[in-house]
Amino acid sequence: MTTEGFIVLDEKTLREYIKKTPSLFSKVGSDDVDKLEVKEVGDGNLNFVYIVTSSSGSIVVKQSLPYVRCIGESWPMTKERSYFEATALKRQYGLSPKHVPEVYHFDRTMSVIGMRYIEPPHIILRKGLIAGVKYPLLAEHMAEFMANTLFYTSLLYLTTTEHKSAVAEFCGNVELCRLTEQVVFSDPYKISEFNRWTTPYLDGDAEAVRNDNILKLEVAELKSKFCEKTQALIHGDLHTGSVMVTHESTQVIDPEFAFYGPMGFDIGAFIANLLLAYFSQDGHAAQGNDRKAYKGWIMDTLADTWNLFHKKFTTLWDIHKEGPGEAYLHEIYNDVELRELVKQKYMTELFHDSLGFAAAKMIRRIVGVAHVEDFESITDLVKRADCERRALDFAKMLMKKRRNFNTITDVISAAQ
Amino acid sequence: MTTEGFIVLDEKTLREYIKKTPSLFSKVGSDDVDKLEVKEVGDGNLNFVYIVTSSSGSIVVKQSLPYVRCIGESWPMTKERSYFEATALKRQYGLSPKHVPEVYHFDRTMSVIGMRYIEPPHIILRKGLIAGVKYPLLAEHMAEFMANTLFYTSLLYLTTTEHKSAVAEFCGNVELCRLTEQVVFSDPYKISEFNRWTTPYLDGDAEAVRNDNILKLEVAELKSKFCEKTQALIHGDLHTGSVMVTHESTQVIDPEFAFYGPMGFDIGAFIANLLLAYFSQDGHAAQGNDRKAYKGWIMDTLADTWNLFHKKFTTLWDIHKEGPGEAYLHEIYNDVELRELVKQKYMTELFHDSLGFAAAKMIRRIVGVAHVEDFESITDLVKRADCERRALDFAKMLMKKRRNFNTITDVISAAQ
Repeated sequence: MTTEGFIVLDEKTLREYIKKTPSLFSKVGSDDVDKLEVKEVGDGNLNFVYIVTSSSGSIVVKQSLPYVRCIGESWPMTKERSYFEATALKRQYGLSPKHVPEVYHFDRTMSVIGMRYIEPPHIILRKGLIAGVKYPLLAEHMAEFMANTLFYTSLLYLTTTEHKSAVAEFCGNVELCRLTEQVVFSDPYKISEFNRWTTPYLDGDAEAVRNDNILKLEVAELKSKFCEKTQALIHGDLHTGSVMVTHESTQVIDPEFAFYGPMGFDIGAFIANLLLAYFSQDGHAAQGNDRKAYKGWIMDTLADTWNLFHKKFTTLWDIHKEGPGEAYLHEIYNDVELRELVKQKYMTELFHDSLGFAAAKMIRRIVGVAHVEDFESITDLVKRADCERRALDFAKMLMKKRRNFNTITDVISAAQ
Repeated sequence: MTTEGFIVLDEKTLREYIKKTPSLFSKVGSDDVDKLEVKEVGDGNLNFVYIVTSSSGSIVVKQSLPYVRCIGESWPMTKERSYFEATALKRQYGLSPKHVPEVYHFDRTMSVIGMRYIEPPHIILRKGLIAGVKYPLLAEHMAEFMANTLFYTSLLYLTTTEHKSAVAEFCGNVELCRLTEQVVFSDPYKISEFNRWTTPYLDGDAEAVRNDNILKLEVAELKSKFCEKTQALIHGDLHTGSVMVTHESTQVIDPEFAFYGPMGFDIGAFIANLLLAYFSQDGHAAQGNDRKAYKGWIMDTLADTWNLFHKKFTTLWDIHKEGPGEAYLHEIYNDVELRELVKQKYMTELFHDSLGFAAAKMIRRIVGVAHVEDFESITDLVKRADCERRALDFAKMLMKKRRNFNTITDVISAAQ
């Protein structure tokens, strides 16, 4: 397949590609390219991901095809998403370099990103959560990633000129936005060939979602915010499958859904996936391992993530209160009491947005097209359905009552 | 002055320009261009506006210069605003042809728009309101203009693909957005060399605005919506100076501030300027003409404008409920009761947005840089200050308490 200079890479052409690309070749040393070890590891549904290793180092090369990999050419999907992923990665790396892989090379025609290889023992966070592994720095790192990437791309730091120009550019990533609109905000609330759930146990629950008028009223408001509120450059898909971890390191990957949207969508995605992990734990419990302590750790991590995010984000705001950001001009908002009022109002709305999006993301993982391994790996369907139902009921309540929650501790109490 | 093909037109070069531009020349017939009558009538602060007349017809030719006309080259202002004005005019004409002048010609290099001449006895609505003239169809026409232009450019009618592409394009009009941000949402709330007010009578009132923390908290929320909420293609400057009227006709002009923003900003601008007209009437009262009946007409027009807008807008929504709009998919929102809930929620938020923006627009016209002739033409300064103070106090209350108002009648009662 070739379109205007685009070729789908395979092991052989990838070697040739690396050879003629100095920014990649320099990373894998002076070896003969035929000696490079090339391994295709794309376990996602969309893209090809190669790990290329030589005696002197490794890199990752990711290529997007103009369709969805796991379906084939019958489901077209712009390969331009690769451009937005590379652009977002570079921006996020600039803002949070400890938690984002460095991009070495981007080729728009070929939709190829060359980037840092995130080496073992890094694993996908979701797999760690299923295995019951604690990551003591996870909350701190995620809070830092979110605070930095969201604050610095919002009008709290940018001028409106910089902001509108960035908004305009990322409007181009509309195909990926539409995919989210469909699978998160629409399909779960109607009959769709793509929806699935643990049948027959959750048949009634799925139907109840489709018939819940108050829920549908709330999800419409969240969808409008997703489509219309250009608050910051969001990752757009910040679930626990987009995070790689060790005990010391946290790396956020795969921002191909990035665009200027509501900050709460990122925070909510992460919250949702911690809650899904929490509700799935009973399904992973075994004799002598009731997962009770681990559930406690997940909830502590959830609390710490929001509380640390809140602290880091408002600290950045304080530091830059006389900075370039045009939302709250210092000359107007210099009164100490007023500044506190403003921050409180902003953070409360952000908290409620985050809870709303978290609820939407939980619901769609139980009755929508894409499920999570946290539940899917529970082989006993009765047990799985029981975990899923508790998560679903909690999410429905959270979406409807989100404005009544004042602290993350209240949310955790409600979940427990 | 010449920059890359741009020349400032004068009477002579305008004639030559028309001669070589068929879409303009055809409108003024086959006369020798030297016989064309050319009159410069731009009484605004920004642009040059020519009326060109021949025996067979008249046209308007508008040219934007790369600076603010009334200040000179020391206040640069992109002439690209002309592109956004022409683009918005064409879009609005397509959606509400009875209330928008037709564009015959646009030249981006020269920043020249050729358009329909809005003939006498059309006058600027603001002047009619000062003179105490009633326009029986004004509310109906404005409601129609707003309902059509806002509904059809929102996600209630557009797909997200069309919407994001239009949002991106109008992000380019950022310089004009920034001007609004400054003069509406910022300057009145801080000390600024541009601010003025009827001194010394309103010195204390202007200071009170700058020290009102609750007001500043509210205006921040409105500013965020202005900067971040890409709800529809708004006119951006819909005051009574942007409307030309006769008893039978209403024409909306000058959308150079157009961009994708909150609908309430347009509705609020119009509401604000009717309220300013209302509060100024006592200053125009004379013996034997207490303006009492006229004040009643203004308030009836205000009520009718919102109520008719509400009716027309929700009717469009009903008509197109199975249309291309992606905000509320018919498959999800087909339940009659749910549809009513959704509309109620949407329209209530829009009403409160409109009241908030109306308040902001009133405040800035009393203590900000640009004032309105409604008050400025009251020569007795004590009387003027008295009218302005009542308008200002009302606007402050409206901004703070807007969420407590359920109907436009409640707002009118509060003003009276």
